[in-house]
Amino acid sequence: MAAIRTDLAMESFENADSGAVPGVRVSRWENGGVDITEVFIDENEAARLLDKPRGSYLTLETPRLRQRDPDARLAVSGLLAEEIARLLPEDDGRAPAMVVGLGNRFITPDSLGPGVVDRTLATRHLMNEYRSSNLRSVCAVAPGVLGVTGIESMEVVESLAKAVRPRVILCVDSLAARDSRRIGTTIQLTDTGIQPGAGVGNHRRPLTRETVGAPVISVGMPTVVYAATLARDAFGWLSAQDGDPEPHEDALNDMEKTLLSSDIGEMIVTPREIDAIVQDAAGIIAAGINRALQPGLSDAEISAMMD
Amino acid sequence: MAAIRTDLAMESFENADSGAVPGVRVSRWENGGVDITEVFIDENEAARLLDKPRGSYLTLETPRLRQRDPDARLAVSGLLAEEIARLLPEDDGRAPAMVVGLGNRFITPDSLGPGVVDRTLATRHLMNEYRSSNLRSVCAVAPGVLGVTGIESMEVVESLAKAVRPRVILCVDSLAARDSRRIGTTIQLTDTGIQPGAGVGNHRRPLTRETVGAPVISVGMPTVVYAATLARDAFGWLSAQDGDPEPHEDALNDMEKTLLSSDIGEMIVTPREIDAIVQDAAGIIAAGINRALQPGLSDAEISAMMD
Amino acid sequence: MAAIRTDLAMESFENADSGAVPGVRVSRWENGGVDITEVFIDENEAARLLDKPRGSYLTLETPRLRQRDPDARLAVSGLLAEEIARLLPEDDGRAPAMVVGLGNRFITPDSLGPGVVDRTLATRHLMNEYRSSNLRSVCAVAPGVLGVTGIESMEVVESLAKAVRPRVILCVDSLAARDSRRIGTTIQLTDTGIQPGAGVGNHRRPLTRETVGAPVISVGMPTVVYAATLARDAFGWLSAQDGDPEPHEDALNDMEKTLLSSDIGEMIVTPREIDAIVQDAAGIIAAGINRALQPGLSDAEISAMMD
Amino acid sequence: MAAIRTDLAMESFENADSGAVPGVRVSRWENGGVDITEVFIDENEAARLLDKPRGSYLTLETPRLRQRDPDARLAVSGLLAEEIARLLPEDDGRAPAMVVGLGNRFITPDSLGPGVVDRTLATRHLMNEYRSSNLRSVCAVAPGVLGVTGIESMEVVESLAKAVRPRVILCVDSLAARDSRRIGTTIQLTDTGIQPGAGVGNHRRPLTRETVGAPVISVGMPTVVYAATLARDAFGWLSAQDGDPEPHEDALNDMEKTLLSSDIGEMIVTPREIDAIVQDAAGIIAAGINRALQPGLSDAEISAMMD
Repeated sequence: MAAIRTDLAMESFENADSGAVPGVRVSRWENGGVDITEVFIDENEAARLLDKPRGSYLTLETPRLRQRDPDARLAVSGLLAEEIARLLPEDDGRAPAMVVGLGNRFITPDSLGPGVVDRTLATRHLMNEYRSSNLRSVCAVAPGVLGVTGIESMEVVESLAKAVRPRVILCVDSLAARDSRRIGTTIQLTDTGIQPGAGVGNHRRPLTRETVGAPVISVGMPTVVYAATLARDAFGWLSAQDGDPEPHEDALNDMEKTLLSSDIGEMIVTPREIDAIVQDAAGIIAAGINRALQPGLSDAEISAMMD
Repeated sequence: MAAIRTDLAMESFENADSGAVPGVRVSRWENGGVDITEVFIDENEAARLLDKPRGSYLTLETPRLRQRDPDARLAVSGLLAEEIARLLPEDDGRAPAMVVGLGNRFITPDSLGPGVVDRTLATRHLMNEYRSSNLRSVCAVAPGVLGVTGIESMEVVESLAKAVRPRVILCVDSLAARDSRRIGTTIQLTDTGIQPGAGVGNHRRPLTRETVGAPVISVGMPTVVYAATLARDAFGWLSAQDGDPEPHEDALNDMEKTLLSSDIGEMIVTPREIDAIVQDAAGIIAAGINRALQPGLSDAEISAMMD
Repeated sequence: MAAIRTDLAMESFENADSGAVPGVRVSRWENGGVDITEVFIDENEAARLLDKPRGSYLTLETPRLRQRDPDARLAVSGLLAEEIARLLPEDDGRAPAMVVGLGNRFITPDSLGPGVVDRTLATRHLMNEYRSSNLRSVCAVAPGVLGVTGIESMEVVESLAKAVRPRVILCVDSLAARDSRRIGTTIQLTDTGIQPGAGVGNHRRPLTRETVGAPVISVGMPTVVYAATLARDAFGWLSAQDGDPEPHEDALNDMEKTLLSSDIGEMIVTPREIDAIVQDAAGIIAAGINRALQPGLSDAEISAMMD
Repeated sequence: MAAIRTDLAMESFENADSGAVPGVRVSRWENGGVDITEVFIDENEAARLLDKPRGSYLTLETPRLRQRDPDARLAVSGLLAEEIARLLPEDDGRAPAMVVGLGNRFITPDSLGPGVVDRTLATRHLMNEYRSSNLRSVCAVAPGVLGVTGIESMEVVESLAKAVRPRVILCVDSLAARDSRRIGTTIQLTDTGIQPGAGVGNHRRPLTRETVGAPVISVGMPTVVYAATLARDAFGWLSAQDGDPEPHEDALNDMEKTLLSSDIGEMIVTPREIDAIVQDAAGIIAAGINRALQPGLSDAEISAMMD
C-alpha cells in the first residue's frame, strides 16, 4: 500500500487499517469548529509500516478554510500558535528561533514555505536595540531549491544553523495528500523533522535534530494529490461500487507501473484556485508562527513591525 | 463519450473513433520537427458528434517545447505566424487587429491569455505618428474574468469591439486536454471563435463573428486535464489491461457521478512546473502573433518597440 | 507657479497663497488622529488659478499610515467609507457602481488603481442569485494604459459605461504630490472626475459626468513627487536660508527649462519602499470602497465573498 | 565632496576633479557602440579621496540600453562576458563559482541582484551526472536582506562559502549614481568586492577575499539617484547659471542638513519605468555571467538547461 503517497500521518494511518495499528495511538477532538487529530507513532515497526518517522503528528482540519471564512482563519491560527508554543524549547533570551520556508517560490503548489517566510516577523537584527523589551529573536530563510540554486536546501539550512545556532528550527513545507478534500483545509504539525522524499519538492536529505543540532518542528499543508494516487483511488472506488470490496492489488500495481512510466506519474492534481489557497494558508500559518514566537507582542504590534 | 472533456478537436476526433467520422476531414504532416494536424469539421452532424463548431482546427505539436528546446520554440512561433497570417483578412490600413487574452491572470493555468496580451505589441495609439510606415494597427486587451470584474469577458470584448471596430479578433485562451502529454506541447489554431463551456475558465457566452461583427481566430494551448477525465481514463486503461476491450459505460457513468458530486470534479491535473510552462508558451504565442500582425517589422524591431 | 506640479488641491491652495484665494473655501478638522482638509473651489477664476476643476476636494492625512499603524489604517478606511457614502447617488437596486482602477499594473508607483480593483468585491454577476439580499451591484475594471493596450483607458471606460450603465463611477488613481511627506500618508477624495494631465500616468482625456453619463467620484493617493518639483523646491529652501524671501522666478524658470530638457524632467522621487506603500494603500482604499458600496454587509462577510 | 553619493568609481573621479587625481589611472575607449571607461585606483590616498577601495573599475555605458535596442543588449552582454572571463581564476574542475544576488526582491530598485540569480544557470548539483562534459560548476543564491530574514546578507554568504568553498564569488547589486542618465544605461564591473555603505540596500559588512576566502568580483547597475544628491546638483546648476562658478559650500551643507533631517534624505529618484529597466538589466547581466561561467556551452544550450 506504500504506493498511496501522502505526507499526512493521519492518512497513512487511515490507509493502513480502518481499525488499529500496534504502536500507534490516535486521539481526535474538536475545538472552535476545527477537527483535531493527534497521531503518536511510538514504535519502530509502526513507523516502518506507516512510512513515517516516530513522533507526534497533530492535524487541524476545517473545510471552512477553503471557503475563506474569517472565523475559521482566526480559529486555526490561534490553535496553531498554541500547539507550536507547546513544542518550543524554553527561550534563553539569546539563541534565535529559525523559520525555514522549504520549496520553490516560483512553483505555486510548492511555494507555501517561502510565502510563510515572507510574512514572518524577523527580529534577530533588532535584538541589541530592543534587548530589554518583550521581543524575542527570530530569523527566517527561504533556502530555495536545488534546481534554482545548485545548493540543496538542507545544505543551506545546515550552514546557516552553524552560523546562527538557533534554539529551534521551524520548517514550513507544501505537502501531498491522498484525499483532495484536504488541500487547503488541513494543517499538520509534527516534532519529527523532515525526511527524504517528503513534501511537494521531494527533499533528498533529512532535516532533523541530528543534522542541525536543534529540535526541528515542521508545519505543512497539502497543496496537491499525486495523479498516480488519484488514479489508484479512482480504481478503488470503482471496485467498491462493483460490489468488489477488495481492490485487485496486482491490477493496481500494473496500473501504477503504466502510469509511472507515462507522464502522469509526475502530474499533480490541484484546485484551479491553488494560487489563492496558498496565499491564504501562508497568511494563516505565519500568523500562528508569529504569535507563538512572540508571546510578548499583540497581533497589532506584530503587524506594525512587519515591512 | 461526451464526458471525456477536451478543447482540442484532434482529441475529440481520436476519441470519437479510431477510424473516420463522416463530415470530418483530417490531414497530418510534419514541418521542422513539428507535427501538424488539420481537422476540418464540414457538417453539422459531425459538429454535434464531436461537440465542436464547424470550421478548421490546426494543431502544432512537439514534445520539445516542454524541454524548452530553443529550436523548437522558433519553429513553432514561425509556423504559428504563417498559419495566423493565412487566416487574417486583408489589412485596409485603418481598422486594427484586436488581440484578446481570455482567462484569469491570477490563476496560473488560466493565465495564458493575459500573458500573451502582456507580450503583444500594441500600436493603435501610434498610428498617427507612424502613418506612412510599415506599422499596422493592433490593440490588445485582457478582459479579466467574471468573478473578478463583475462583467463577463465577452461583454467587455463586445463593448470594446463596438468602439474600436476591429478588422479581426484574435483570442488566446488556456485549454483543457484529454491527454496530459499535450499540456505545454500543443497549440491549437481555429477560425471558429469561442463557444460556451470552452477553455479552462469555462466561458458562458460565445465570441464569434455574429456576436462581435468581425472574424474571430482563436489560439490556445492545453494547460490542464480535468481530474474526472483522468480518473475515467485510468479506468479505461485498467479495463484494457484486464483484457476487457470495452469499458463498462454504466460503471464509468456511475464513477463520473460520484466524482462530480465530490470535490474531484473541479480539480485539475497539471504539471508541477505549470508556471514556467505558461510563461514560455505566452512568449512563443506572442512571438507568432506579433510576427503575423506586423509583417513589415523584423523581430528585432518588434522587440525594440515593446515596453 | 504652475510649474509646481501637484494633483492635491490642498497643495495647490497652499502654494497659491499662504492666506486666502477668492472663490475657494477651506476647512480643516481632526477625527481619530486623522487630519481632514476640505477645499471647495467655487468659482471659475479660482479653478484657473489653482489649475483644478471646480468642486469639492477632501483630504485624509496621517503620517501613521507610513508606519503601518493598524489603528490608523482602520481609522482611514472607516472615514473614507463614510465620505464616499456621502457622495454616492441613491441606489435604485439595479444599476451597478463601477470601480475603475486607472494606471499601469506593471509600474509600481502607477499601480494603485489596479491594486484596488483586485481587492474590490465585484457582485454584478451575482445579482440574480442574491436579488432579495443586502448585496448591491458592483463591477470593477482596470483598463490598463495606452502603451500596453493601444486603447486609451478613458475609451475603455466609456465603452464599458455604455454597456453597463453604472449609477456612479469611482475612479482610483496614483497621484503626484509636491511634498514628499504626503506620499503614502494622504488620500484625496473628489467629486470632480479626472482631468487631462492628472495622475502619475498623465491621462490624455477627461473622465467626467459629461463623458460617461454618470457622476464620477475619484480617490487617489500620492506615490511620487516629480524630480523637477523637488529641484525647484530645493532652490526655494536655499533662497529662504540665504535670507532671500522671494525666489528668483527667472532663475527658477531657467532651471526648469534646463531640467525638463534633460532626463530629470521625467524622473520621479519616491521612497525605496514604494512597493509596500502601494500594496498597503490599495488594501485601505479597497476596504473603504467595499464598505461604502456594500452597506448591508459586514467586513467579515465582504472578506469571505472575495476570491 | 563626500556628500555627493555615488557607487560608480567613474563618477567619483569626475566629481573629484575635472583633470587628474594622483594614484588614479583612467582609460576610455569604445567598442560596438558601447563606451568603456576603466578606472584604476592604485594608491590608498586616492582611495580615500574617491571613497572607493583600491582596485579596477570597468564601466560599460550606452544610452541605447534604455531604448531596449536588441543590438545594444547583445553588445553589452558580450562585452560583460569577456571582461568577467578575464577576471575569473582558473577553473580546477571542482570548486564552483558562486553567484550572489544582493538586495531585496520586493523593492523594485533594489531587486537587480535577485533578478540575476533567478536567470543564472545553477549546475553544481548536476556535476556528478555531467562530469565528463563541458559543464562547469555554478551555484547561485539571493541571500535576502536584513529586515526580511534577520540575518545579514553577508553572514549568509560567509556561511554558504564555508560549506561550498567557491573558487570565486560574483556579486550582483543595484547601485546609486550621481547622474540620472546612468540609470539603466551603465554597468560597472570591479575586482574589489563590496564595501559597507555601498549599493541601494546599504550593506553593513564588507564582502571581500578577506571575509569569504575567495576572490570577489562585483557587477552592478545604477537604478537610483539619491534625492539629496539631486537637490545638491540642482543647486550647483543654478549657481553655475547665475555666473557663479563656485558653489557655496556652506549653503550646500546647510541644505544637505535640512534635507537629511527631512524625509527627502531617504527618498530616491528613479524613472517611472524602473520595473522594466531592472528586468531588462537582469537579463543582460545574467546572459553575460552565464556565458563567462560556461565557456563550453552555446547560448542556446544554456537557455535550454534553464528552468
